[in-house]
Amino acid sequence: MSDHRPGTEFDLILRHFAPLASGEAGAYALCDDAASLAVKPGHELIVTKDMMAAGVHFFATDPPETLGRKILRANLSDLAAMGATPRAYAMGLALPGDLPPDWLEKFVAGLAEDQAQFGVTLIGGDTIRAADGLTMSLTAFGEIAAGRALRRSGAKPGDAIFASGTIGDAALGLQVAEGRPLAGVAAAERETLLARYRLPEPRTELGRGLVGLASAAIDISDGLVADLGHICTASEVGARIEVERVPLSDAAAAACRAAPELIQRLLSGGDDYELLVCAPAQAEEDVVAAARAADIPLGRIGTVMPGSGVCVIGSDGGEMMLERGGYRHF
Amino acid sequence: MSDHRPGTEFDLILRHFAPLASGEAGAYALCDDAASLAVKPGHELIVTKDMMAAGVHFFATDPPETLGRKILRANLSDLAAMGATPRAYAMGLALPGDLPPDWLEKFVAGLAEDQAQFGVTLIGGDTIRAADGLTMSLTAFGEIAAGRALRRSGAKPGDAIFASGTIGDAALGLQVAEGRPLAGVAAAERETLLARYRLPEPRTELGRGLVGLASAAIDISDGLVADLGHICTASEVGARIEVERVPLSDAAAAACRAAPELIQRLLSGGDDYELLVCAPAQAEEDVVAAARAADIPLGRIGTVMPGSGVCVIGSDGGEMMLERGGYRHF
Repeated sequence: MSDHRPGTEFDLILRHFAPLASGEAGAYALCDDAASLAVKPGHELIVTKDMMAAGVHFFATDPPETLGRKILRANLSDLAAMGATPRAYAMGLALPGDLPPDWLEKFVAGLAEDQAQFGVTLIGGDTIRAADGLTMSLTAFGEIAAGRALRRSGAKPGDAIFASGTIGDAALGLQVAEGRPLAGVAAAERETLLARYRLPEPRTELGRGLVGLASAAIDISDGLVADLGHICTASEVGARIEVERVPLSDAAAAACRAAPELIQRLLSGGDDYELLVCAPAQAEEDVVAAARAADIPLGRIGTVMPGSGVCVIGSDGGEMMLERGGYRHF
Repeated sequence: MSDHRPGTEFDLILRHFAPLASGEAGAYALCDDAASLAVKPGHELIVTKDMMAAGVHFFATDPPETLGRKILRANLSDLAAMGATPRAYAMGLALPGDLPPDWLEKFVAGLAEDQAQFGVTLIGGDTIRAADGLTMSLTAFGEIAAGRALRRSGAKPGDAIFASGTIGDAALGLQVAEGRPLAGVAAAERETLLARYRLPEPRTELGRGLVGLASAAIDISDGLVADLGHICTASEVGARIEVERVPLSDAAAAACRAAPELIQRLLSGGDDYELLVCAPAQAEEDVVAAARAADIPLGRIGTVMPGSGVCVIGSDGGEMMLERGGYRHF
């Protein structure tokens, strides 16, 4: 956190953020122009950056405890998709002038929880006044043995396609957050969906376990079909998945029973932060074992095909027509 | 630039930003979840992050050619203050919906110029829609031999204090940008001041040359007195500088002749991005030689003292009373 005036932002940062940086000597207690990051011999750094703005990626009224954790976890999910071990992060915050007095304290408390859970440390950043609403920017750093990072580009026709966890919960959680009705879903399950939207689970252990096994991987942040499309583009292949095999939570399954057309939104909704993984068919047992070792549910949902594009086979055995392919950033 | 939908942001990014990433294989052409960064053996990575928002750090109407370069250079200046060699950067952009059609093209063209000048490559980032005005977030990466980074914390009483370039031009440039009058300064010099505000010069070569010589260093982004105060706090020392020795540009000197009270603003104005350097008195010749080798003006402005705080000696030999210590972020 470079260049701040004593008595104003500098104090605020020291008080709130320096404790988050105490685990890494190279953070220099956030008191220098920059941080140092030493990388283990034979390893390389994996770097990812996300930005989120109030009114676009979250609600200004969302609990401060979850906001920092959401952007941190979204970045950790990118590291997981590369198979990297999380190490550190730098945080940029544009803060509106009208935040409640305890907002920053709660925001930092949430981050502290996640630092302990995921083994990462704050090493620097910048805090500015926002002209308008809150904007967060986070750069996360992971480590991996040189040349071993999982990529989007290695999928081959015949490879099996797997998805971790359950798909589409965050899209339904957003619907809950917006106060829109969701037929067939009990109140407790609505809370579960909301939690999935606000606090994704980066699949860090699974990603690490897939190094050397997966031919391609991506985290599902734009939606299952869109992100599978990214793998297809990068790998120059097509893909075919079966809607019946897409793993749904009990809440999502209940919502689909009440409104079958919802399946479209589950396939295209963003923010799941599950891993989408391709691997040679003969590695299927090893992939399943890696997921079991990481204690993360994972199931096969389809097959990589020659050609291009994603084809979703519906319950009736015919190809489903999809309304939209994923989250539109613009 | 992770997770974008084909046909929308993905295309936009590929078209505009991928050429900026072509110099670094680990950027994966901005087509993967994250980037890889290999660090030379025996070296460590230096990481710095800045954030800037329209209406706070720049004008929404500023030329797009200079905006990306300004935040890039501000970060390169942090790397210079650590003595690091610039290597790469990741860029976060929250873009308002109403940008002129050629805005992004010009923005990227400016960055391309600076990449060539400073030897850095884009390796990743994120582009989102802004709820309001433009916000930029940049994380820059430099490299330095392990344990050799310049710090703020090594200044000792008796050390000489040096400043590079000229001080306060950016504060006057801001006054020009705001359309406020500036007596005694000709039109051409007003343009020079405006350019200094919009396009700072990171002192990269000087910073590299100071490794092993300087006892402490910082880049002047909050203002000369405030940033010298940061060194004093980190080093647990005081400092005494002489206003007559503070290097001024011809334009700033002319402005001070017309309005002597302006000197206050020059000492406290931000955005200079010059280096403020402490070194043992016996290293003075080597420091001056390093600046000459880097072709960057540098002069001694004072001495590190026991105690705490910054004392500025005025032209009359008495201590100056300073109105304010530097740029207030909040």
